[in-house]
Formats: sequence, structure tokens, C-alpha cells
Amino acid sequence: MAKYTKRADDYSKWYNEIIERADLAEHSDVRGCMVIKPYGYAIWENMKSILDDKFKKAGHSNAYFPIFIPKSYLNKEAQHVDGFAKECAVVTHYRLKNTEDGKLSVDPDAKLEEELIVRPTSETIIWNSFKNWIQSYRDLPLKINQWANVVRWEMRTRLFLRTSEFLWQEGHTAHAKEAEAIKEAEQMLHVYADFAEQYMGMPVIKGTKTEAERFAGAIETFCIEALMQDGKALQAGTSHFLGQNFAKAFDVKFADKEGKLEHVWATSWGVSTRLIGGLIMTHSDDEGLVLPPKLAPIQVAIIPIFKTEEQLAAITEKVDALKQALSEKGISVKFDDDENRRPGWKFAEYEAKGVPVRVAIGPRDLENQKAEVARRDNKTKEVVDWNGIEDYIEKLLNDIQDNLINRAKEFRAEKTTSVDTYEEFKKVLNEKGGFISAHWDGTKESELKIKEETKATIRCIPLDSVKEEGTCIYSGKPSTQRVLFAKAY
Amino acid sequence: MAKYTKRADDYSKWYNEIIERADLAEHSDVRGCMVIKPYGYAIWENMKSILDDKFKKAGHSNAYFPIFIPKSYLNKEAQHVDGFAKECAVVTHYRLKNTEDGKLSVDPDAKLEEELIVRPTSETIIWNSFKNWIQSYRDLPLKINQWANVVRWEMRTRLFLRTSEFLWQEGHTAHAKEAEAIKEAEQMLHVYADFAEQYMGMPVIKGTKTEAERFAGAIETFCIEALMQDGKALQAGTSHFLGQNFAKAFDVKFADKEGKLEHVWATSWGVSTRLIGGLIMTHSDDEGLVLPPKLAPIQVAIIPIFKTEEQLAAITEKVDALKQALSEKGISVKFDDDENRRPGWKFAEYEAKGVPVRVAIGPRDLENQKAEVARRDNKTKEVVDWNGIEDYIEKLLNDIQDNLINRAKEFRAEKTTSVDTYEEFKKVLNEKGGFISAHWDGTKESELKIKEETKATIRCIPLDSVKEEGTCIYSGKPSTQRVLFAKAY
Repeated sequence: MAKYTKRADDYSKWYNEIIERADLAEHSDVRGCMVIKPYGYAIWENMKSILDDKFKKAGHSNAYFPIFIPKSYLNKEAQHVDGFAKECAVVTHYRLKNTEDGKLSVDPDAKLEEELIVRPTSETIIWNSFKNWIQSYRDLPLKINQWANVVRWEMRTRLFLRTSEFLWQEGHTAHAKEAEAIKEAEQMLHVYADFAEQYMGMPVIKGTKTEAERFAGAIETFCIEALMQDGKALQAGTSHFLGQNFAKAFDVKFADKEGKLEHVWATSWGVSTRLIGGLIMTHSDDEGLVLPPKLAPIQVAIIPIFKTEEQLAAITEKVDALKQALSEKGISVKFDDDENRRPGWKFAEYEAKGVPVRVAIGPRDLENQKAEVARRDNKTKEVVDWNGIEDYIEKLLNDIQDNLINRAKEFRAEKTTSVDTYEEFKKVLNEKGGFISAHWDGTKESELKIKEETKATIRCIPLDSVKEEGTCIYSGKPSTQRVLFAKAY
Repeated sequence: MAKYTKRADDYSKWYNEIIERADLAEHSDVRGCMVIKPYGYAIWENMKSILDDKFKKAGHSNAYFPIFIPKSYLNKEAQHVDGFAKECAVVTHYRLKNTEDGKLSVDPDAKLEEELIVRPTSETIIWNSFKNWIQSYRDLPLKINQWANVVRWEMRTRLFLRTSEFLWQEGHTAHAKEAEAIKEAEQMLHVYADFAEQYMGMPVIKGTKTEAERFAGAIETFCIEALMQDGKALQAGTSHFLGQNFAKAFDVKFADKEGKLEHVWATSWGVSTRLIGGLIMTHSDDEGLVLPPKLAPIQVAIIPIFKTEEQLAAITEKVDALKQALSEKGISVKFDDDENRRPGWKFAEYEAKGVPVRVAIGPRDLENQKAEVARRDNKTKEVVDWNGIEDYIEKLLNDIQDNLINRAKEFRAEKTTSVDTYEEFKKVLNEKGGFISAHWDGTKESELKIKEETKATIRCIPLDSVKEEGTCIYSGKPSTQRVLFAKAY
């Protein structure tokens, strides 16, 4: 049996192995692009369906915009272009032709007049459409969401965390009033936070980004920040208040009730397949992936233990009834009766794949009207009466979901430290990691110096941060509130 | 009120207007790429969810592969490259830079070593992965599906029917046995045909393509062909038996039970947003879109007729109960109580959008415990007792679904003609259009001559075609079965 890396020994290697062991994704031959394998994609589908439902309930409609953005569009919003022009895939031609040696080459006669960018994000192409969609206050608010692939040319890539192509959703809304747009950006942040905590079991800090960390083109970037097991932070979702920047860049105005023309106010917000990276690094252990029941593609794996066909037949009959009872409760079950694999192999397989509950049933269990039920999160198991086992499992899944978020919250609490001096800051950062709450003078200068010297960045200015007089750990200048630092993915 | 084009006057213009009137999609500024607007996208979401469910029930898993294909991959399958290299978007650079005049230009220092193609279809990139996924017969069959965007550089585009970027699903499967792969390709064709008939209300002919019309790289292409209102055919979906072509191109072998290495057998199959074009051209009329209830984003629109706030309040109370009753039956309802729009405007709006059932209720209806129920498909209406109206509507939706498919089948029967001479063939093609069933000698030569002279192509060799002795309408040579000709989209 292969020896796997432990978290304590090499977290980064452990992460890569977990993805391989659980069969979630793999690198493709195309630089920085991943293949999301069926089991990984099934997790994404679960995330998508829950989020999509939440977006629709909050009044958003899905639509689809072109993957290509004319080069000149990027240039229309000054900060935006700086943020995205340096890492994009550029389409310059629309045809290949055969060369004499039987190879393919770009056809020089098929050069585009204007190059196209594969979307790194869609503000520009969407606001170019919004221009035609918005004339009057009656057209507002306009609340659109898109599920799509985007491309940002990344030099150093990690599966799920940072890939050149990734899948995401991007919400884009237009409003008549500034306050309404800010409220929308905040509301979607709360939707993300609720999703992270209630479904992923991943506690997050809600906050705003500093100017240095803001989205290119935003007035304010709201974010959710999670803490990974290795003490590094992960930006898990962002929601931007874009002010009138894109409305002005694309000349999008509406007539108010008095007929006066005004630029509209905008938001955009997104989460991506990066969430799967966050999920892995919040719960998994040295034995493999650990999934929260609410996102697990398989919630219960049932493994028969048998030597003869008769035994298997008797177990199967019994299990069919349980499968039926569980599926009536909306619980997804896999009965693995593959005769080519031994039970021990299957136990290890479902453990590596993070299936929350495993049921094992053999001939003796049949006799005793019992089965062995094991939970993945804390690796305990119990022999349970067959009668009423479906209720036991249902409750167990809820317990596991609760345990995962509670455990993650405890971990985060342990790994969050308040410091008052730069010495202390550096000591905690090196020895313990995690979130560090400290005073900061509000200048980009101090922020960048700290980043340069320690690699820690300001993850966010927490929304629930209490006003408190203090002095910046770096400059000693006065500060009115603590911000959250960490090294980050 | 705007005057709209009638089908009889200019079918093509009517089609474009319908899409605008129903707010389904629009051209973007990016050549050949469309924006799918929320109402159009909602139809696609309904299609997707039904098809996805059918694919999963048939044992397929979703996954996701990179959007970029290295240029050299295209070259690995000889026919495939000929089919797709001539119309593709080519990424040559990965960065833009600012020029002195404040514009953006491609950074010549960021040229890719090997150009990347934006996928026109994913056989090559997927089979490159399958190579690593398949070692033994235990890994087979491998049944994968992907929902994705693809790009084929089209010179003449039509919304939904032919766009440079479109959304689709592509199934890719690998099998140990040739017969099993053929069976899979046929099975997925039947899934498509059932979906077209039972959900879209669009009758289709199942058949195989001639060599000239086959997918680039396939041994056999199965297809479903539908007939549009203007007598032209629409290829609505294809399913390919790829033989061992891609397995050989990417060297994908499996060890059978005896340990012998063999190349695997492949299929691929896809349907796209083109289906929405087919939906429009099967049912819609001069007043707007007509949607089958099973795909309609809004199945029932309820419009209150009122002069005072009190009247609206009384109607709303009544309607709330109906909405509840309908939603318990899984029927989607929109109660449009917008006070800025008059009922007449709303009637026209929901008619243009193809909402299957419209309910109007005013103060006199309240008194009489009645409401007016109008059906979109045949534009009849009836005054119905409020008591039990939810059952009436449920039945009505079923009737509409049935009526649409029956009407379309009748239309197709009228527009399908058997001919035995080339003279007759040309006469029917010009005067009546539709499907023409005729004998053909089986040669590419006759097929291409007929196409050249008449613009009609062989849509398919129907699967249920009866063997029958005859002579080719073009060459006079012997033929053993009739094939289906038509002009096509």
C-alpha cells in the first residue's frame, strides 16, 4: 500500500495527494489548466445548485455573455485594464492551415482586425450590453448572474486554488441609487458567508479589502476569508461595489422619474472552483478527503461483507429496503457490491473520498439485525440496530455537519491572535501562523512594507470589528481599529 | 403599436423579430457571438436540467476539460483536423501591454511556444486524458459528459442556429467492445429523440448521415432531423460512433480479462443552444413565441384587471391561493400586478413570450367566482369556474403539450413527399419544400450533384426506412432504400 504524505510533514504535498487520492482533478497538458474529474465535478455541481437557488431567491436571473472581449473594451476602465491586461489569453487569428510538412500553422491571412481577450471577468462585455438594456428607472434594478469559465494567465498554479482557467459565477447588477448598490454588494457577501458556513462547514470572516487588495475597478471590495489547516488564509469569495466606474466607462445612464439622466450604480460578485480547495483544506485529514454531508456526492456508502453469492443476495435484499428509506429522506447512497474488490479496499477508498457515513453489513449482522456504522469526520464507529437505522443515519449526517463547522470554528479561534507590537506580530506569524488581529495606520505604505518583510497581507478589515484606539504595529501612528493579517493562498 | 413581420412574408425576418420580441437573445459586438438574455437562458436551463437528468440516469458522469487545445492535438486525427482547423479561434499570446499612445497592444515577448485553439469540440483534449484513465477492462465503460461553451468561427451567423460561440453538452464514452459503443451511440440518439418529442414537442426523424455529411473523425454519425415551418430541415442533435479512430490517435489501450492490450471503442454526442432555434421554428406564430409547457420558464401568467387598490387587494388575495395550489402541482406562475402597465400591454407581452396559459381576473369575475383562461397555442379562451381552476389549468397544460406535438407531426406529414423522378424532386422542392423521400444510388457523386443543382442535401438515411427496390432519382442506378432530402439550416 502506498505511503501518503502527512499534513504535518508537507502540507502542500499532502494537498496534491488528497486531490489525486479522492480523484477530484488533475493537471492537463495545457499550461495551468485543470481537468475536473467526475467526483470533483459532482462537488462543484452541488455547490452550484445550492448557490444558484440562493441567487434566484434573491431576485437574480441567469444569462450568458460572450467568452471573447474586444481588446479595446478592457481599456475603457482605467484600473480594470491594469488589473487584467497582464495575464490574459489573446486570440489573434481565426484559422489554421496545413503546412507542407503536414503540420498545422496559423494562417497569416486570417488575422483579426482587433484582438480578442478570453474573458478574465466579464464587467466590460456585460456593461456594454447593459448600455442597451437600461434606459429608465423602470429597467432597474437589473440583477444578472452568469455561470462561466474564465481565464487568467497564472504563472504558478495549484489545482482548484489558482488555475489559468477556472469555473465560477459572476453576478452583475445595476441600480438607481448608490445605497441600494452597496446594500446589494453586502447582501451577496452574506449569501456567500452563509453558504460557506452552513453548507461547506467553513467559517469565514466578513470584511472589506484595503485599497491595495481591492478588485481592479471597484470602490469597495467585500470579501469572505477562511483559515486553512496550515494557518494560511484563503480568500473564498468577493463582492464589489463598483460605484459608477463601469457606467461611466460604458456610458450607461437611466432616466429617473423626473426624466433626469443619471449614471447607474453597479456591483459584481463571484465565487469559483477555488471553493473546492477551501473545502479540502478545512476538513480533510491524513487518511484523505473529509466532506460535509450537505455537499458530499455520496453521503452514505454501504459495503457488503460476504463470501458466497447467497450471502450477497441476502444482504442485497436487506440493503435495498434501506436504500429506499434513505433516498426517501433525500440521502444519497452508494451500495458497492463490486465483487472484484475486497471490503478493506472499499473502506480505504470511501475514506479517501471523504464519504461521511459508511455502513458495513455481513452475515453475522444479518443474523443479529445489526450493522456497523462508521463516521468519517472523527473515525468512530458503532454497531447499530437495523430497525430504525435510517433515522440513526439521518441524525448522524446532521451531527457530522455540525461537528465539522464547530471543529473548524474552534481551530480558527485557536489560530487567531491579537498582537500589539511588530515583534510579537512576526513571532506569531512564524511560530503559529493563522489570523493576526493588529492595529494598522491605514496607509498603503505600511501595508506594503509589512507584506514585503513578512509575506503577510491584510486579509480584511472585519465588518464586525469594534472601534478601538491603538497604534499601528508598523509605523506607531494612531489607528482606530484592528485589521486581520495572515499569509494567504 | 409596432408592425411585425408575418411568417408568410419573410420567415427569416420573422425569426429574428420573434427573438427580439420574446427577449431571448441578441447579437453582441463580438463577431458571431450572441448574448443569451435571461428569458432565453431560462429555456436553456430547463432543457439542460431535463437532459442532464436523462444522461445521469443512463450512467454518465459530468466532468470538465480545458477550453484550450494545443494545436498539435488537432492534428492527431486526420479527418478531425480537416473538419475543424479551418474555423477556429487561435490564442497566440498571453499578455497585453500599454503602448505610448495609451492603447493596448499584444506583447510580442509573450508569445506562446505552441498556439492554443479554443475548443470547437473536445474529442482530442478528452482522449488525451482518457489515455491516463483507462488501463484495464475494469475502467470500462467510461461514460463522461461535459456542459461547456465551444467556438467555431462562422462566417454567416444566425442567433441560436449558427453562432461562433455556442453552449452545448458533449458526451464522450469509451468501451471495450465495438458493439457496445455502437449501442451507446444509438441509445443517446434515442434519448435526444425522446427529449425533442416529449419535451420540445418537436417530432424528429432518426437516421444516419451519409459519408459526406458525417462528423469529422466518425465511422457513423446518427442524427435527429426536424422540419421547420418554412419547410427547411434542422439537424437537432448528433451521436457519433467513432470506432477506434481517437483511441489510435491518442494511443488509448486497455488490458482485457486475458491481459491482452486492445484499443478502446468510442462515441461522442451533443446537442446545443441550436435547439432553441428549433423550438422557435416548430411552434411560434405571427403573434410571437409559442412554448411547450414542459420547457416554458413561466407556465401560467395571471393578470389582474382592476381600477382601484381595493379591487387589486381582493384579486391578490384570491390569486395567492391559486398560486399556492398551482405551485404545489409543480406549475410555475407569474402574477403580474405591475401598476405601471395596462392589461392589454401585458396580454401582448405574455403572448409574445409564448407563455402557455394566461389567466385574467377582474372584479366581475370575483363576483361570479370565475376567471378567463386563455391558451397560447390555439388562441382560444374560456371562462372557467374558480373552484377547481387549478385542476383545469393542469389538464390544459397537458392538452397544450399534446396539441403542439400533434400539430407539428401533422405539419411534417403534410410536408413529407415521396418522389420517384428528379423532375418531380425539383418541383416539390421548389413549390412545397419539406422532406423529400427518394431513392439514391449511395454515391457521394450523385449526392453532391443534387446538392449543387438544388441546394438540397441528404438529411439522413432513416433508421426505420423499409428496404425497397428502386432507382436513384439522379443517376438512375439501382437503389435499395429511400433517403430523406431537404434544404437545411
